[in-house]
Parts: sequence; C-alpha cells; structure tokens
Amino acid sequence: MRITILTLFPTMFEGFLHTSIIKRIIDKGLVEIRIVDIRDYSLDKHRHVDDTPYGGGAGMLMKVDVLHRALAANSKENSRILLTSPKAKPFKQSDARRLSKFSDIVIVCGHYEGIDYRFEKYVDEKVSIGDYVLTGGELASMVISDAIVRLLDDGISKQSLEIESFDNNLLECPQYTRPYDFYGDKVPAVLLSGNHRDIKHYNDKMALRETLKYRPDLLENHQFTKEEIALLEEIRNEFEG
Amino acid sequence: MRITILTLFPTMFEGFLHTSIIKRIIDKGLVEIRIVDIRDYSLDKHRHVDDTPYGGGAGMLMKVDVLHRALAANSKENSRILLTSPKAKPFKQSDARRLSKFSDIVIVCGHYEGIDYRFEKYVDEKVSIGDYVLTGGELASMVISDAIVRLLDDGISKQSLEIESFDNNLLECPQYTRPYDFYGDKVPAVLLSGNHRDIKHYNDKMALRETLKYRPDLLENHQFTKEEIALLEEIRNEFEG
Repeated sequence: MRITILTLFPTMFEGFLHTSIIKRIIDKGLVEIRIVDIRDYSLDKHRHVDDTPYGGGAGMLMKVDVLHRALAANSKENSRILLTSPKAKPFKQSDARRLSKFSDIVIVCGHYEGIDYRFEKYVDEKVSIGDYVLTGGELASMVISDAIVRLLDDGISKQSLEIESFDNNLLECPQYTRPYDFYGDKVPAVLLSGNHRDIKHYNDKMALRETLKYRPDLLENHQFTKEEIALLEEIRNEFEG
Repeated sequence: MRITILTLFPTMFEGFLHTSIIKRIIDKGLVEIRIVDIRDYSLDKHRHVDDTPYGGGAGMLMKVDVLHRALAANSKENSRILLTSPKAKPFKQSDARRLSKFSDIVIVCGHYEGIDYRFEKYVDEKVSIGDYVLTGGELASMVISDAIVRLLDDGISKQSLEIESFDNNLLECPQYTRPYDFYGDKVPAVLLSGNHRDIKHYNDKMALRETLKYRPDLLENHQFTKEEIALLEEIRNEFEG
C-alpha cells in the first residue's frame, strides 16, 4: 500500500513516521507513506496557498487551483482520494478495514479555516475522525493512516486483532499483570486457577459487563450468542441479588 | 493551563509540539505541554514497563505499579486525569469545551495491547476519540490536546469559533476564494453581490443543505430559529420543484 498525505505542515508528521509501530510496518515494506507539501504547488512567487473568502467572513481559505495541482501530481487513476472534513459520519473501525483494501490512498489535510468548496468534487470521500474541531487535518490524517496501516501487519498478532473492541461491538474484558497484589488490590482468583474454561467464562462475562457499563449503545449492533444471553442473565441476577 | 502527557513514545510528539498553531499557543504562554516518558518510572534495571497477562491471552499489558508511580510524580491535587481508552462515549466538541476550563490536565496514553485494569481507579475519566483501534494512545492524546488548546487562543478569532461546526450542530456553508472561475466552475453570483442580507440568507441556507446532505443526525440536537424553518421550507420546495 502507498499512502500520500498532502499537507501544509509536513514537519508535523516526523514523530508519527519515525516512532513505534508505524515505522516497523514501513520498514517491513508493507506500506510507503509519503508526505507532500501543498505549498510546493503554489505558482505564486510568495508561495501563497490561501486567500480571503468571497462574500466576506473570517479566516483564509485554501485555494482550489493549488490543491488541484498538488492532487493531480500525486495521485493515480486507481488512487482512493480522501479529504479530512467534518462533512461525514465519524470514521469507524469498519472504514479502516474497508480502506485497508486499497493499494493507493491519498489524504488531503483540510485547513482549519476551510478550503474552497469547489475542490470537494475531486475527492472520493470526505472523512471525519469525530465530532470535534481540530487546528487542521494533520492529526486526522495520522489517525486515519494509523488505523488502516496497523491492519496490514501480521506482527500485530491475529489473536490480538480478534479480541479487539469495535469489530464485534464488545469492549475488552479487564486484564491484569504483575504484581499480583497492588496495595491490597488483587488479581481475581479465577485468572490464576489455570482452568481455561472458567477463565473464558469469567472474561466473557466481564467483557459484557464493561460494555454494559461504558458503551451499552455498542450492544445494539452486537450479535448475541446463546452463551452471552446466559451471561447477561447471570449479570442481571448479580445486580438484583 | 498545563497539560502533561504520560507516554511510552515521547519522540512521537515532536512534530505536534513544534509546528503550527499549537506552537504559537505555547509561545504565547497560554499552555505548557509536558511530555513524560513512562519508562523513566520503571524500577526494573531493564526498564520494563509491561508484562504478560494473568490467565493467558495475547500481548503485553502495561504494569499498574509503573503507571501509578509515573502519575503520582506528575499530577497534583487539582489535576484532571484522563486515560485514553475505548471505554467511553466518543469525545465531542462539548468535552473539549468542558476540559478547557481545567488548569491542570494529565493524559495517560493507553497501550495498544492493554493496561492493567487496576490502574483505571486512579483516573478521573476515560476518553475515546472514536470507535476505531489505533496503535496506541499517543495520537488520541494529541487530538484531545489540540481540540482543547485551540479554545484557549483568542488569536483563533471569535467569529471563526462562532460559525464552527458541532457547537451549533450545523456544518459550515460552502466557501469560495479566488480564482473566480476554475475550469468553468464559478463562484455563486450572490457572494459577489455585496448585498450582505442576500449573502447571509444564501449562506444560512447552504449550511442547512450541507447538514441535511452529510449529517442529518446533527439536526436532531439543533435549535431551529424561525428563519431556519423558513429556509428548510425553501430547500424542500427546490427539491420538489
């Protein structure tokens, strides 16, 4: 996969590209991430990329001609072209999975004050990472890239992917590691029992409990198994008992 | 305001802190952002911070004792302590506003494979930036910080803040800048009319249209004015006409 990010702030990506898991996935050759400075596509001798809005209003807008030139020079026929924008339902794990199938993705980072509306027709989809306002699309493009790229790596073990939140609409169960006793707060005994069936029963139940507590809305889309329905009954009895 | 971010990947924040608007807000003295390496609080000579989970399972968990030590050394009585975690309703603009009132915020970056459950009792709230899985809490902590910090700056003009999406549950209207004619795609005539009343009418109507098109769900929480109800009628007539 190749991901090209068009931005006015290319240095903002240095930390993202050079640390941790993303670097490992790049080094494995699973993805190439290119950062392109939109300013390089201004024909203006002062390298202007924005201008005041027609009809008045606050702020400066990114110019459609500069954006279009940057996009044309950095996309191909088969590129999937994304624009960070509030004009979309918030991005979900299913979007990350869907986008991970493309071989070439271009992400155009929106400008916090806005871009010329006429550019929108050149993008395949607008992507919002959530219902909040950021100073620019740079962090959003990193979030989108991160969510997609990690799916390309088998190094993030299959088992770990399977038990992840959001794919099955359940939060993970509580997990514990050493020390066994932290200021009197001990690891639940069942996890030390060595009885795999009991452990699984406990973990499944706790995952349901956590989801009921923090994200009951996720359960609306969850396909309950027979076992889970029995666990729900157990949880209900404990609350009433 | 002071924001302290506890992370295993401190270098990942370099781009975020040194570019663009965040740097300007830091330079103005409106916020101090400190990045703390959790690894510095491991007592282990190999500086281990994670260990295998009790009861089995994939991945390594961040240790409660190390996290607790890092937090204790970097928080105060009045600190608001956040943990990036999927165990929360997705962060919204109203959360950014609410958190922008605190003078001291600590954000603990969760680990992609999980942290010891017993650490959760030491945090005030868990924060999720959306229903997708990232390689770690670092990008989430930048997103949260960015959304909060920009609210501290008057330099991001009041007018610009007022017309923003999400605060009033409306998307912004389309905006245009030079060139007037881009490959035959022209700026709507009304925006060049100089008639402020007509421009406002057009912009208000287009904002409603964009919201109806891309985020009709936002309108469920929108307080409609009389003018907006009339505009909705106009939009409906255009669709039917």
